[in-house]
Amino acid sequence: MNCSFVYPKQVEFVETDLAGIVHFSNFFRYMEQAEHAFIRSLGYSIHMQDGDQVIGWPRVHAEADYRAPLRVEEEFEVQLLVKEIRSKSLRYAFRFRLKGKSDVLATGEMVSVCTTYNQHEKRMKAVPIPEGIRSQISEASADMLAKGIE
Amino acid sequence: MNCSFVYPKQVEFVETDLAGIVHFSNFFRYMEQAEHAFIRSLGYSIHMQDGDQVIGWPRVHAEADYRAPLRVEEEFEVQLLVKEIRSKSLRYAFRFRLKGKSDVLATGEMVSVCTTYNQHEKRMKAVPIPEGIRSQISEASADMLAKGIE
Amino acid sequence: MNCSFVYPKQVEFVETDLAGIVHFSNFFRYMEQAEHAFIRSLGYSIHMQDGDQVIGWPRVHAEADYRAPLRVEEEFEVQLLVKEIRSKSLRYAFRFRLKGKSDVLATGEMVSVCTTYNQHEKRMKAVPIPEGIRSQISEASADMLAKGIE
Amino acid sequence: MNCSFVYPKQVEFVETDLAGIVHFSNFFRYMEQAEHAFIRSLGYSIHMQDGDQVIGWPRVHAEADYRAPLRVEEEFEVQLLVKEIRSKSLRYAFRFRLKGKSDVLATGEMVSVCTTYNQHEKRMKAVPIPEGIRSQISEASADMLAKGIE
Repeated sequence: MNCSFVYPKQVEFVETDLAGIVHFSNFFRYMEQAEHAFIRSLGYSIHMQDGDQVIGWPRVHAEADYRAPLRVEEEFEVQLLVKEIRSKSLRYAFRFRLKGKSDVLATGEMVSVCTTYNQHEKRMKAVPIPEGIRSQISEASADMLAKGIE
Repeated sequence: MNCSFVYPKQVEFVETDLAGIVHFSNFFRYMEQAEHAFIRSLGYSIHMQDGDQVIGWPRVHAEADYRAPLRVEEEFEVQLLVKEIRSKSLRYAFRFRLKGKSDVLATGEMVSVCTTYNQHEKRMKAVPIPEGIRSQISEASADMLAKGIE
Repeated sequence: MNCSFVYPKQVEFVETDLAGIVHFSNFFRYMEQAEHAFIRSLGYSIHMQDGDQVIGWPRVHAEADYRAPLRVEEEFEVQLLVKEIRSKSLRYAFRFRLKGKSDVLATGEMVSVCTTYNQHEKRMKAVPIPEGIRSQISEASADMLAKGIE
Repeated sequence: MNCSFVYPKQVEFVETDLAGIVHFSNFFRYMEQAEHAFIRSLGYSIHMQDGDQVIGWPRVHAEADYRAPLRVEEEFEVQLLVKEIRSKSLRYAFRFRLKGKSDVLATGEMVSVCTTYNQHEKRMKAVPIPEGIRSQISEASADMLAKGIE
């Protein structure tokens, strides 16, 4: 099951390091920004309050493979794919490309767990993904599959 | 009234930008780290929980003047001075120097306000600085003055 | 002499801290992003290569005053004004507002110096602002003044 | 072949996010800081200049698995192990633990490639790890193995 979403972005100066390229850790921030833009595109906030509880999506796994660097001011796209929908977690895959180019600069994966955070007990607990957002993701996914993705 | 405290630090790679120097915004993070190390040196946490309320120190003002750059791996010191103790806020001044050097690379100021944060109402409110920490800061200050600071 | 430019932005999750608001240091990054977007809007890169030399705009001064916090996912605007054009530097002023709102959340100023960076000698040197970009800024400024800005 | 090195660190306020925990991307910055401290412990800089060329260690792979969160002001340790020494790259493994505790909060891996960066051609090229640092790493490794690591 796959679902694709494209997040456009331009490299900021502060995201570079003295090697003149985007610091490798910032690719994980780009992936998160793509993930959050995806969730918002479905009509949800990435920080949903529910009474005393907040629903969030902390990561239990993240990885990236780097093939070519990103440089200051370059416009690029993060392609997001939902690789797996489990009861309490989502596995995303990401591909980075310069805008309008086909070469993949980097790839990545993240596993985000649906959790509630009780502000009194200061405890996070994994919970089933709420049915509303789950079905939205499935729909988005089917839509993408119908169109076909590379 | 003055009180001096020195926070040692080494420049991390990620703190540089493509100009090969520490990004100017990171000097504000260094100032905060010096401020927090100072508060911890007095025996307090920078995130004090008090029932449903958390005491924090958000900034209402911050400024920096840059004379010379900091580069990767350089060891430097942030000298912190408490310039003013008001009922609900503290004004700090900072000087950046390379370790063992007298030239000042940068100076800065910050005004931190003592606030409580009510997690239910999601509201921050300025409150008088608790007497314990206030008297600690005054003592530290007197101690510094007795020693004399440059 | 004034010149106004508006940079729209949405708060990213990673830009918040445990107080639930945007970390104060990130306002300086937002100001830089507005500055860079402004320079690009005039047709220039913020990292102009000229043979062995790179023209950059390091800051010699930066300050901010904070009135109200920014929170995750909030859409806001950074209004940039060129307050002063000197031979080798520009003084910018900034105002932060929520999208479509008139309340000012924060204000700031930055002084950016036009410098060349010689990659062999690893030295930055302040230089007169190139005539092309200087006249562009003046034009943009006159244009803004003609329209009137609040 | 294994080689262990421990990097101590305390969580900074700015490294947390609104969930009240260290942002997942910062674990990669901690891994880099441990890697750089390790390289410096062998007597080398992480940014070695050699004429027009700079030797650096960009990452081609990075990953992390998160078991438990890190919170503000917590003191923790990053244990670094050199898992593999190849001709042009090093594979590191990392374990995060609270200071003095045995529970592993997170694990990670990074593959860093020895590269030269030609500042004229703006090109990075993978090169064999210089013999000096390679033998230092092997020695450090043998030393660790002799002591035995858990």
